[in-house]
Amino acid sequence: MTFIALLRHGQSQWNLENRFTGWVDVDLTPEGEAQARRSGVLLADSGVPFDKLYTSVQTRAIRTGNLALDAAKLAWLPVERSWRLNERHYGALTGLNKAETAAKHGDAQVTVWRRSYDVPPPPLDGGEFDLSNDRRYAGVDVPKTESLKLTLERVLPYWDERIAPDLSAGKNLIIAAHGNSLRAIMKHLFGVADDQIVHVEMPTGNPLLIELDASLKPKSARYLDASRAETLPASPA
Amino acid sequence: MTFIALLRHGQSQWNLENRFTGWVDVDLTPEGEAQARRSGVLLADSGVPFDKLYTSVQTRAIRTGNLALDAAKLAWLPVERSWRLNERHYGALTGLNKAETAAKHGDAQVTVWRRSYDVPPPPLDGGEFDLSNDRRYAGVDVPKTESLKLTLERVLPYWDERIAPDLSAGKNLIIAAHGNSLRAIMKHLFGVADDQIVHVEMPTGNPLLIELDASLKPKSARYLDASRAETLPASPA
Repeated sequence: MTFIALLRHGQSQWNLENRFTGWVDVDLTPEGEAQARRSGVLLADSGVPFDKLYTSVQTRAIRTGNLALDAAKLAWLPVERSWRLNERHYGALTGLNKAETAAKHGDAQVTVWRRSYDVPPPPLDGGEFDLSNDRRYAGVDVPKTESLKLTLERVLPYWDERIAPDLSAGKNLIIAAHGNSLRAIMKHLFGVADDQIVHVEMPTGNPLLIELDASLKPKSARYLDASRAETLPASPA
Repeated sequence: MTFIALLRHGQSQWNLENRFTGWVDVDLTPEGEAQARRSGVLLADSGVPFDKLYTSVQTRAIRTGNLALDAAKLAWLPVERSWRLNERHYGALTGLNKAETAAKHGDAQVTVWRRSYDVPPPPLDGGEFDLSNDRRYAGVDVPKTESLKLTLERVLPYWDERIAPDLSAGKNLIIAAHGNSLRAIMKHLFGVADDQIVHVEMPTGNPLLIELDASLKPKSARYLDASRAETLPASPA
């Protein structure tokens, strides 16, 4: 048996401002930093001997991972980062205030963009949020927009090539990432249906600890702060 | 041409208490954290597009690297850690106050242990500072004591196998480590004589930026805060 802990980054400045963030590299707020440290204490208290940290290449997830490891006295763990664990790319919605976007396009349309499985927002067309020339993404075909489905499709190769082999080798892992890249992993692990995955919420500052069997199917799962646990998807029988 | 920046961790709690630290995992003081952030600003201001961070597996070097990358807006850099970049192991002196040790063994003996190239202190014989059962060092033959020579001999294989190939591939690197593991790298790079290397001091919070030619020989080197620069070893002609 092996364990994987899914850790969603804490509050960022744009969470606070209610703006679509996606791939923009917004940092944590002081509250987000405190959430990360609390997550680290919860991870340490779980008693699982973690072996490695995976992160996206976005600062808010990286710093969440670093602060959690510091608090858990696990700063020495090996770390591996990949853009494939980045947040879903919000396309032309990037940077917009969610309430203003709803006022402009209507609640129904925004709900489709936010909560449908396979409808991406309109593509980003250049501008200040275009990261295709960012040095961090050299060699990466930076998306112009993503649905959750497209997010899952770029997370999955990384899961298969890097994360799953570590788990099969008995390593206990922490993944510090984002609401939608972690939702993609949960969809894959728990076999959640396309029309159900959008209802699965990953809380911030409350790691989800999943115990996996030898075939990497979930045997059990629990939020480490049980008082703030979200409902977990049922695994298919 | 390629660049390597050597970054010695900032002040730790035991630096402050004037104790031999070695492999004991003492954390930074608030002043040490501030030095790390200042180093990050200096690294960013250098204009070098860094590609990767190497660290030891000791918290004070890891956190120095993390804080420096945060300040440089380079948190996304890939990171690789190795025990081979750890501080020199101080053997039975570990944990002792330097002044008390001099009072007990005499200044001359302590100077030999601290400043000779190849005389290790007496070996550590168990006790609270014995790390041979620490999970972090699983599979590592944890030393019981080290001279600078022994430190260099375990740094060098890692230099040859991991760091040098990255440099040869044109990657610009940051090494966040310790006074003696960095001194070992300087001895190797600058060809410093055995009886001269102990006089080479690496300051804290002031990265040494070295430009290397295609054969990884130093072409130039400078401390990024020139106002606090130490004398550099002359490269052999």
